[in-house]
Amino acid sequence: MPSCTSLYAAIDLGSNSFHMLVVREVGGSIQTLARIKRKVRLAAGLDADNRLSQEAMQRGWHCLKLFAEHLQDIPPAHIRVVATATLRIAVNADAFLVPAREILGSPVQVISGEEEARLIYQGVAHTTGGSDERLVVDIGGGSTELIVGRGAQALELFSLEMGCVTWLERWFNDRSLTKENFEQAEQAAREMIRPVASSLLASGWRICVGASGTVQALQEIMVAQGMDEHITLSKLLQLKQRAIQCGKLEELEIEGLTLERALVFPSGLSILLAIFHELGIKTMTLAGGALREGIMYGMLNISVCVDVRERTLKNLQHRYQLDVEQAQRVSRLADDFARQVAKAWQLDERCFTLLHCATMIHEIGLSIDIKNAPQHAAYLTRHTDLPGFTPAQQKLIATLLQNQSHQIDVAQLNQQNSLPPRMAQRLCRLMRLAIIFASRRRDETVPEVKLRALDDTLHVLLPHGWLKAHPLRAEYLEQESQWQSYVHWPLLLEEIH
Amino acid sequence: MPSCTSLYAAIDLGSNSFHMLVVREVGGSIQTLARIKRKVRLAAGLDADNRLSQEAMQRGWHCLKLFAEHLQDIPPAHIRVVATATLRIAVNADAFLVPAREILGSPVQVISGEEEARLIYQGVAHTTGGSDERLVVDIGGGSTELIVGRGAQALELFSLEMGCVTWLERWFNDRSLTKENFEQAEQAAREMIRPVASSLLASGWRICVGASGTVQALQEIMVAQGMDEHITLSKLLQLKQRAIQCGKLEELEIEGLTLERALVFPSGLSILLAIFHELGIKTMTLAGGALREGIMYGMLNISVCVDVRERTLKNLQHRYQLDVEQAQRVSRLADDFARQVAKAWQLDERCFTLLHCATMIHEIGLSIDIKNAPQHAAYLTRHTDLPGFTPAQQKLIATLLQNQSHQIDVAQLNQQNSLPPRMAQRLCRLMRLAIIFASRRRDETVPEVKLRALDDTLHVLLPHGWLKAHPLRAEYLEQESQWQSYVHWPLLLEEIH
Repeated sequence: MPSCTSLYAAIDLGSNSFHMLVVREVGGSIQTLARIKRKVRLAAGLDADNRLSQEAMQRGWHCLKLFAEHLQDIPPAHIRVVATATLRIAVNADAFLVPAREILGSPVQVISGEEEARLIYQGVAHTTGGSDERLVVDIGGGSTELIVGRGAQALELFSLEMGCVTWLERWFNDRSLTKENFEQAEQAAREMIRPVASSLLASGWRICVGASGTVQALQEIMVAQGMDEHITLSKLLQLKQRAIQCGKLEELEIEGLTLERALVFPSGLSILLAIFHELGIKTMTLAGGALREGIMYGMLNISVCVDVRERTLKNLQHRYQLDVEQAQRVSRLADDFARQVAKAWQLDERCFTLLHCATMIHEIGLSIDIKNAPQHAAYLTRHTDLPGFTPAQQKLIATLLQNQSHQIDVAQLNQQNSLPPRMAQRLCRLMRLAIIFASRRRDETVPEVKLRALDDTLHVLLPHGWLKAHPLRAEYLEQESQWQSYVHWPLLLEEIH
Repeated sequence: MPSCTSLYAAIDLGSNSFHMLVVREVGGSIQTLARIKRKVRLAAGLDADNRLSQEAMQRGWHCLKLFAEHLQDIPPAHIRVVATATLRIAVNADAFLVPAREILGSPVQVISGEEEARLIYQGVAHTTGGSDERLVVDIGGGSTELIVGRGAQALELFSLEMGCVTWLERWFNDRSLTKENFEQAEQAAREMIRPVASSLLASGWRICVGASGTVQALQEIMVAQGMDEHITLSKLLQLKQRAIQCGKLEELEIEGLTLERALVFPSGLSILLAIFHELGIKTMTLAGGALREGIMYGMLNISVCVDVRERTLKNLQHRYQLDVEQAQRVSRLADDFARQVAKAWQLDERCFTLLHCATMIHEIGLSIDIKNAPQHAAYLTRHTDLPGFTPAQQKLIATLLQNQSHQIDVAQLNQQNSLPPRMAQRLCRLMRLAIIFASRRRDETVPEVKLRALDDTLHVLLPHGWLKAHPLRAEYLEQESQWQSYVHWPLLLEEIH
């Protein structure tokens, strides 16, 4: 079988950019081979009568010629090309689409706003943690999708004719970042949202995720500025203030905002502010995927998992050939430890979950080498795409794995922004102990351990005579007590008499 | 099946250290789970009558108690414990061995020098590149093995009763690093070697590899001092000079020599010098494994591969689920390119081989993520155990993979010590081009490319009209020509008219 028959391509002709995603299906999981993006800004070529300019079409065709070269080698049934807002509304769309099909050698589907919203929701459901009711927001170049769903099921779908490119052309036409321009852009967006707000609010949601460049840009800004990953109204208002201070679009400078995203950032921000206001959103995080991922998972016919995170952990265990039993053993033990000291250390469900996730893949570094295995585990966790985990969670898990044995880097445990530093430190201590006690890889060899926490002092209570009977682990525990003492974590080993 | 049934343990009770190696067999390959080492220095407990002191025995038993805890969970048929020189010659060996067996719950085999040599050879053959005739040198704590073999077959086996611990006690007893002590130690070693030298020399060898702490220490010193990885007589003589300057064993300080290895380094060095002199060795490299690996591969019943490197590359392709066809396509193309410019660029067989190895695993980084895939590829290559490759080769391959696309870091290409900087740069250029031309993953899409090299200027000659017909790759090549020009590598694209 030639290697190209396992390839799949999803292309999306968006109003701001054209994207091509090429993946390879390998052993039931997906490996991304190419992500090609060209900022065509098709929507900028629409005139007042929604007529697409020849110039914008040329930009689009030029990009499609590049895509076409790659597409030729992919089985036609493995290709899906969709076009969104701009080609939905352009009165002369066919003048673009007929040559486009010719160039690509593939059909191009202009999908409805509702279909776009459905695909976006699928893309989010496949790549984002939590299966509770969620609100999904995707601000595109020419349209904005708002969806409420539960698990794999979209319940309310809306596609509004506003996007960061069209709003740029309409409300920031003078390229000025004035209070007035923002005000007008935001008011116009609120008027678009108002008619659909009540249906969305009636469905209700527990979590809110954003897909699209605007939310991605916000994420990058927050990471660069050392903030946590939750987008809130007050952060958005601060950024608006900062943009207004810059005065002109070409002088816009915000730490963490890349040149590539700057042009449509203020217009996207005004739309997002309108959404936050109209829907009363408290906090939003970044989705793991959207339209292209929805198209891709649809083609590959992979059904949405009840728990995206568990699937991700299982995939990693399989891909890196982990000892699954051992992962579960350590995970159970760590969980037991955490529940024993939950009250004293104020550990909550979020802590239990993160500790579970970290322990399920703690041996991943062994796949590279036993030498520096914790460092390898952290590297893999930090850089692998982990559907269902937010960047901050990913960083926390990587940090815990880095500190699973040997020397402890407290500064590193404090530098993540998923949990308060003290919580991260406490999870780290419990995980390290679980790894030592389970090190013989057999359930019968795990002793009954009682933990008592008094502030930062942790008492480890063992059955009488256990240390003498288990000299290797006694030595490990002795060393561990030293490692922890170096960072001022008192750890006391005691036998019950 | 409980996870512990796939575990194997190899224990070696050496004269300097006791070692336990625990591995897990997973999908036909070996994952190391634990390497426990304790410097017992048993040989130091032998008196003039070869009677082992009670104190040394105690050190040994204490260590075995640690090992024993781990051993209990491993199926008895998966455990092999061998004892070497000191326990071969100790007149009261049984006084140590009877309790030792009791502690371990496993039989302990005191193996003959010849059996030790045979196992060492197997360990080297499984982990070291090249299948030509090789001389293997292993300087242990109490014995030194010299073996000549071809492929999997040991042809001449010798075990001599001298080692770095016994030589330390005998010739550096006053802890002085004088010229006289070195002289005596070296002369005594030469007298031991002389009787077996003629048989070894008669067999002959093409490459010489060293296993053991002394050679490992030399490797670390050379890396720390930025030298290439070939151990030569002149380097050994320089190090001896340096040691003599230090005067006292406790004042020995050589850049790259760790505290852990320092004590037995001068005595090991004197033995190695004797071997170099008596056998006329020109150059030696470090073996990838020795006794413990020989025991382990023997238990796992894995036969020695004709080509250890090819097996390593295949294992990596399998483990990281690479597109093998694509790897071969890029490899063939890169080889074709290299042969076209071999004369102008003075590329030799060594270059072809390294280019082949790098291209066979160039996509390994995709297993982590397409984002920064070259960096991931370099990380994996740098840190994974790669049987058959020397550390310098491993570093070169990692460096090539890091520079397989996008920005080029010439300083990095120059910092490896496997090839002259210019050679490494040239291989890098050819690999990058092969990756671009093969990017469509189908043989039919690879054009006929002619390369002409004039000093550092590389002309890429393409069929007439090819660039216009292949706009994506034309764009890639255009970018590539820029990347190369940034580092002053002129790359000219031309079509043949």
